Amino acid sequence: MEIYKFLKKNNHCDDVVVVQGLGFVGAVMSLVVSNSSKKDYAVIGVDRKESIEIIDNINNGIFPIKSSDPKIEEYYQNSVKQGNFLATYDASAYSYASVIIVDINLDVQKDSDNKGNLNSFDVDLKPFKNAIKTIGQNCKDDVLILVETTVPPGTCMKVVKPIIEDELRKRQLTTNKIKIGHSYERVMPGPEYINSIKNFYRVYSGIDENSAIETKKFLKTIISTEEYPLTRLVNTNATEMAKVLENSYRAMNIAFAVEWSRYAEEAGVNLYEIVDAIRMRPTHSNLMYPGIGVGGYCLTKDPLLASWAKINHFNSNNNLEQSEKGVKINDKMPHYAFEFMKKVFALDSLVNQKILLLGVSYRSDVGDTRYSPVEPFYLNCIDEKAVVDTHDPYVKYWEEINIEVSQDLDEKLSMMWDIIVFSAAHTEYKNSKVISKICKMSNVKILDTLGILEQKDIVEMNKKNKVKVLGRGDI
Amino acid sequence: MEIYKFLKKNNHCDDVVVVQGLGFVGAVMSLVVSNSSKKDYAVIGVDRKESIEIIDNINNGIFPIKSSDPKIEEYYQNSVKQGNFLATYDASAYSYASVIIVDINLDVQKDSDNKGNLNSFDVDLKPFKNAIKTIGQNCKDDVLILVETTVPPGTCMKVVKPIIEDELRKRQLTTNKIKIGHSYERVMPGPEYINSIKNFYRVYSGIDENSAIETKKFLKTIISTEEYPLTRLVNTNATEMAKVLENSYRAMNIAFAVEWSRYAEEAGVNLYEIVDAIRMRPTHSNLMYPGIGVGGYCLTKDPLLASWAKINHFNSNNNLEQSEKGVKINDKMPHYAFEFMKKVFALDSLVNQKILLLGVSYRSDVGDTRYSPVEPFYLNCIDEKAVVDTHDPYVKYWEEINIEVSQDLDEKLSMMWDIIVFSAAHTEYKNSKVISKICKMSNVKILDTLGILEQKDIVEMNKKNKVKVLGRGDI
Repeated sequence: MEIYKFLKKNNHCDDVVVVQGLGFVGAVMSLVVSNSSKKDYAVIGVDRKESIEIIDNINNGIFPIKSSDPKIEEYYQNSVKQGNFLATYDASAYSYASVIIVDINLDVQKDSDNKGNLNSFDVDLKPFKNAIKTIGQNCKDDVLILVETTVPPGTCMKVVKPIIEDELRKRQLTTNKIKIGHSYERVMPGPEYINSIKNFYRVYSGIDENSAIETKKFLKTIISTEEYPLTRLVNTNATEMAKVLENSYRAMNIAFAVEWSRYAEEAGVNLYEIVDAIRMRPTHSNLMYPGIGVGGYCLTKDPLLASWAKINHFNSNNNLEQSEKGVKINDKMPHYAFEFMKKVFALDSLVNQKILLLGVSYRSDVGDTRYSPVEPFYLNCIDEKAVVDTHDPYVKYWEEINIEVSQDLDEKLSMMWDIIVFSAAHTEYKNSKVISKICKMSNVKILDTLGILEQKDIVEMNKKNKVKVLGRGDI
Repeated sequence: MEIYKFLKKNNHCDDVVVVQGLGFVGAVMSLVVSNSSKKDYAVIGVDRKESIEIIDNINNGIFPIKSSDPKIEEYYQNSVKQGNFLATYDASAYSYASVIIVDINLDVQKDSDNKGNLNSFDVDLKPFKNAIKTIGQNCKDDVLILVETTVPPGTCMKVVKPIIEDELRKRQLTTNKIKIGHSYERVMPGPEYINSIKNFYRVYSGIDENSAIETKKFLKTIISTEEYPLTRLVNTNATEMAKVLENSYRAMNIAFAVEWSRYAEEAGVNLYEIVDAIRMRPTHSNLMYPGIGVGGYCLTKDPLLASWAKINHFNSNNNLEQSEKGVKINDKMPHYAFEFMKKVFALDSLVNQKILLLGVSYRSDVGDTRYSPVEPFYLNCIDEKAVVDTHDPYVKYWEEINIEVSQDLDEKLSMMWDIIVFSAAHTEYKNSKVISKICKMSNVKILDTLGILEQKDIVEMNKKNKVKVLGRGDI
């Protein structure tokens, strides 16, 4: 009924686009599509019934994702004004779509211990398959299904296509008009959230020529392809591989910094300074800094998806050893940071130590705590009976831990602490007022896990406190 | 006597600079110094007596390094005209120097099998120590010794400084005036040879404040530091680490491409196409292509130098696992290429197979065969009793193998071959005339180890021949 009314109101629109999944990608993708300047789209975002809060919020004027990108709110308000964006859990929405964009999760199940050692992992395709099945049970037989989800290479051909065709057949529909494209997103939550979709390069492919052509046509209506030209690859295996390859590359480059951080600590040098010097070379400008760990939804799992598919989709005898190794090294970073803290401050016990964590999200200036490296660090502290408090300007409630997070830095810095940890590189923490407040404290152990403190600040803080920095052996 | 005459003729010069080592770095460094536009230097290049041919050539109007960079000859001719560049094996040269630049080799001894498996390695510092000792036995007590050699981190402080001071003491000289700086070169033989010294970023440091200041002063007279500002690091450990870190990064990024090449072959996709698509992202622009292997003097050993020093200079309990692994993976590439050739062409035996290798140098458009990956590939072919011939526009004589290399491509392509291998990406091989000659052949197996053939060329060649490309499973 709701959908019917929505469509009636929007019957002037060129096309109905349904976005499957209203998470960090799908919700914002919906905004970009409903704000297209090139075509007039009616957008229906579909999520599961369990996500009713998100659905209700979207329909009641509250966008579910808080972001430092002002365009998010601007785009959302425009959608509200236009009335061309509806959220629902009603799967019948798929039946009206000319284009269905798949933005659901495809997770890796990791079995790790509390030191971050990855014992084993697996990929359970069932939830993903079910979601695709729901599309097949409802969609038109000539719809374009555009998969944006990061999937194990081979998935569009070996999983999506057969499921959809199977469901179409069950409904006595022809299977030769369906179009399936793959074009992975490179969404970056943060100040450039919208731009990371609208104004960025895209790679695409289709399961056949017509699918590729239609995918391109659609992408041209929502992305600034004049400035950021599309790249077509020959098939969906290739684009699927491209996505996991680029994230594996990033993950491995971070793992590389880990190894050299330890070296820098041993050799008494400052790795941040070295990285800055090397980054002058254009070929080395993406060299990574040391840090507390790698978080977020992608880099922590994509290399594993790739490795899993190598064996399970392409019958290889061996896994992606190096890329898996990158994940394994990165997974251990938070625990290393924790052990580093105990070692450099000579702490035999953390019992009743008052610890303030500055930042809980996985990335600077972003309110995203999924797989945040601060989580295992926090849990390690709790395990050893420390008293841990948290602050983050972007996170009010830390879902994964189930605790409130303070957003009042002044208040937190007026309290007494044994240890203060810079655990996210939010801009607020680099503010000179914040730094000078910490400088005025005494007998506080300060751990900078991200090298955000400047040399002069460290010198000043060290007068009455004790500062240590991960990846720096020279303090 | 020779030196005396040279200095007398050049007594108007501001300073005498002695370059120790006249190899790929030292010889060209000598040219850059003797061509400084900011200071008037008399340059003496010193090498061992065994290198008498190089020394004689330099003194008789023949520069020992052939290069595609026309500036090499131009600079050399200018040095000849100015008469301010002498080569010698006479160590007394050091006694006249205000600046001594150390450009000698420091090698890693690798124990590998013929499949490229690195069983073990070691670093023998003895030749390096002896060279430094020779300087200490001759130099002024206030000379600036500028080490450019890639050394295990810790070497300037733990090896160079004590040796020099020891020798000065033996000569009853003071040890408090000596200056030791470290500034690693980023020399790239090829069309930008001179520019890679003169017009590129440099990192430097000194064993103390005065050493750093004097190093900077000197570098400013030979490098375009206005456009390419110098970066000072806090001590020589840091700059030494920076050098091996940046080369380890490069080596590991190549090793990353190796793993994904195998995946691409298995999944039937074209990794070159994928890499091109991903390189559009500024953060991923240095992603490497697949290939026959990693050669040259640096990337094949620098990660090992670093790892060795971690344990031997800084008492670490563990090596640089990932960086060593990068070398190990890369070392196996040529043998993999060899096995790939046999597999994709279904060759049980290579006995009497006529194979033409196009390119023997380790890098495109460069005449440098040091540690060329073509070498183990060639040896694998010979081991299996193939009849192998070679061509390279930049290499007349292949020192490591002791064979003549043809420079007449027309002649070679008019002969009959069972297999033609593109083993270096020299520009000449991409020439349309060359490609069309190969297209006209028949029943030839063509292996492109570097992805230099374009799709249309492959289609054309495949009509009468059989083309396979490393890192491409879709042919």
